[in-house]
Amino acid sequence: MEGPSLLEELDTPALVVDLDVMDWNIERMAALARQAGVRLRPHVKTHKSPWIAHRQIRAGAAGITVAKLGEAEVMIEAGITDIFVAYPIVGEPKLRRLERLLNEVDLMLAVDSVEAAESVAQAVRRSGRATARVCIDVDTGHRRLGLPPGAATVELAERVARIRGLEVVGLMSHAGHLAAASSQPALAEAARRAAEALVETAETLRKRRLAIEHVSPGSTTGAAFEAQVPGVTEIRPGTYVFNDRNTVERWAASEADCALTVLTTVVSRPSPDRAIVDAGSKVLSSDPAAGGAPSFGLIAGRPDLKLERLSEEHGILSVDPAGGELRVGDRLRVIPNHVCPAVNLSDVLYGCRDGRVVREIRVAARGRYR
Amino acid sequence: MEGPSLLEELDTPALVVDLDVMDWNIERMAALARQAGVRLRPHVKTHKSPWIAHRQIRAGAAGITVAKLGEAEVMIEAGITDIFVAYPIVGEPKLRRLERLLNEVDLMLAVDSVEAAESVAQAVRRSGRATARVCIDVDTGHRRLGLPPGAATVELAERVARIRGLEVVGLMSHAGHLAAASSQPALAEAARRAAEALVETAETLRKRRLAIEHVSPGSTTGAAFEAQVPGVTEIRPGTYVFNDRNTVERWAASEADCALTVLTTVVSRPSPDRAIVDAGSKVLSSDPAAGGAPSFGLIAGRPDLKLERLSEEHGILSVDPAGGELRVGDRLRVIPNHVCPAVNLSDVLYGCRDGRVVREIRVAARGRYR
Repeated sequence: MEGPSLLEELDTPALVVDLDVMDWNIERMAALARQAGVRLRPHVKTHKSPWIAHRQIRAGAAGITVAKLGEAEVMIEAGITDIFVAYPIVGEPKLRRLERLLNEVDLMLAVDSVEAAESVAQAVRRSGRATARVCIDVDTGHRRLGLPPGAATVELAERVARIRGLEVVGLMSHAGHLAAASSQPALAEAARRAAEALVETAETLRKRRLAIEHVSPGSTTGAAFEAQVPGVTEIRPGTYVFNDRNTVERWAASEADCALTVLTTVVSRPSPDRAIVDAGSKVLSSDPAAGGAPSFGLIAGRPDLKLERLSEEHGILSVDPAGGELRVGDRLRVIPNHVCPAVNLSDVLYGCRDGRVVREIRVAARGRYR
Repeated sequence: MEGPSLLEELDTPALVVDLDVMDWNIERMAALARQAGVRLRPHVKTHKSPWIAHRQIRAGAAGITVAKLGEAEVMIEAGITDIFVAYPIVGEPKLRRLERLLNEVDLMLAVDSVEAAESVAQAVRRSGRATARVCIDVDTGHRRLGLPPGAATVELAERVARIRGLEVVGLMSHAGHLAAASSQPALAEAARRAAEALVETAETLRKRRLAIEHVSPGSTTGAAFEAQVPGVTEIRPGTYVFNDRNTVERWAASEADCALTVLTTVVSRPSPDRAIVDAGSKVLSSDPAAGGAPSFGLIAGRPDLKLERLSEEHGILSVDPAGGELRVGDRLRVIPNHVCPAVNLSDVLYGCRDGRVVREIRVAARGRYR
């Protein structure tokens, strides 16, 4: 490894991963899945790094989830073969890429419409493969992709199952709406209800002779509750590997479980109530805080500092004058609101143990949005 | 150039630059500066591309502005030498890099505190150079870096001028507060007032024997007004090269002046009032709209579609059922709210003329946030 080996020598801003905390996060989620008797298929969009994906697999993950073919390509290159592409694949350029990938790996694919299913089936037929496994994406409340559970999804699944080249093997959902829950009991209840709707729809489909193997709700905030719902076979959390301010706000982690922080330097103290750090939206992203708090990250260990505004290269802190000292040149650590887009802004994460940088982790699938 | 040569063959999402519109934007801002008798020093953070920076210089720009040393390094590598680093340089790793760069190029530097000035001076003295030129960053209303114009800035400038190795040659500001103006006349008035405060402070400093050559306010939205203020010597707009939804909202451009759009594909039509496209926050950024409109970009030519929510890889459109058709596989073009962070999420921009892709433009300084 080139570059500095002490945290203090790192230039800023820098994304620093406490590998002990990360390993603990990986192990804890693997244990949660094991104890509940479900498969764990982490979404790798959070870290976009084959090195970390392999660690998740070694800890017990059954395979990985990706959103885009570009992410799948990077992970296949790194030797990972059990991959679920949880995104409808539409358009000729992508179908050509899919065809090539199917020749190599038995990808599992998500579809949420007959149109997407028919075009994916074309790619399957053009590949050397007789069939590809697909999961139907179901809208359990997030109002993004998918049809509602029950009749609408049952009809869609049956139509997709009749398309030559496709084998309907599962139902998936992403309960993104849990982020809006106002309390942990409300979140738990919403997560359970969403997962149960998925299970019931799977039951209906099985009665109609579709061999639904996978019932897979997916989110970090809901994972602990989803895994307990009888009939759920798999969970697909992503953010848990690092956690972030929003998983803390959603009761799924504590600040101590946040493995990734952005190391930043105070570059200006223009007034007693204001400080400027060198981490702006080009390193943190401008993703808002879950729950609507008007701040762009937590300053670790410094409740007297609030990250109130971001420019591209500036973080503007409001400073409580009754708090501690803060001078030009001081270094702070920011827990980002949302760690996934922050990682996607960097080429390298600095993995450290006990204050030493022990590994530069390449964000190999950064920017692979196609 | 590898890759497809027709727009229709591009995989999505893709950042497409209409080079005719971009050239017109570059030419128009150069003419504005020429006619006002001020220098133009575009901020290259918008495009992060040496190829475009060279076009700006050929059209008459006196040099370029960068925020971070990493951007300066990329531009120096591409043969550009007249560079203003409009950001306080703090911390030993950066000072070592600065020292190396000063050996090669006579960078102009911004400082807004004695602390930052003193550390920059160390790097100057360690370099082969006797002095470096610095501009004092002044807070004309944005409440970010800098002290207010007048007495506070005068005192700071005089203290900096006494530091061995530094030559105070100018005052700079960034009127980011113009984004909050409620009307074009209000914006014009605020831009003029901010620039006048800078000019007056420069006058005071000249009376006190500081040779202030540069009086440089900087923003795309204020440029036309700042350039007209007597005593202003330079403008530093950035966004004008592409424009975006926010420059349109701030009356500085029309939709037809937006050179960069994000080509995206409809991947799902789960309900009559909703469509999902494959452009999310990992290609558009989640920067909000100036003026607070709850949307993440304009869909070019389709006022019936509103980009209401973003996930990382999904854009969620609300669809007016009285509008046009919209099917899975259709392609749309999104004008991003804020083009600078969108560019920073991509490795390549596709330059096109008349619907043909004629150049892949490398975003060479993407991610160079240090």
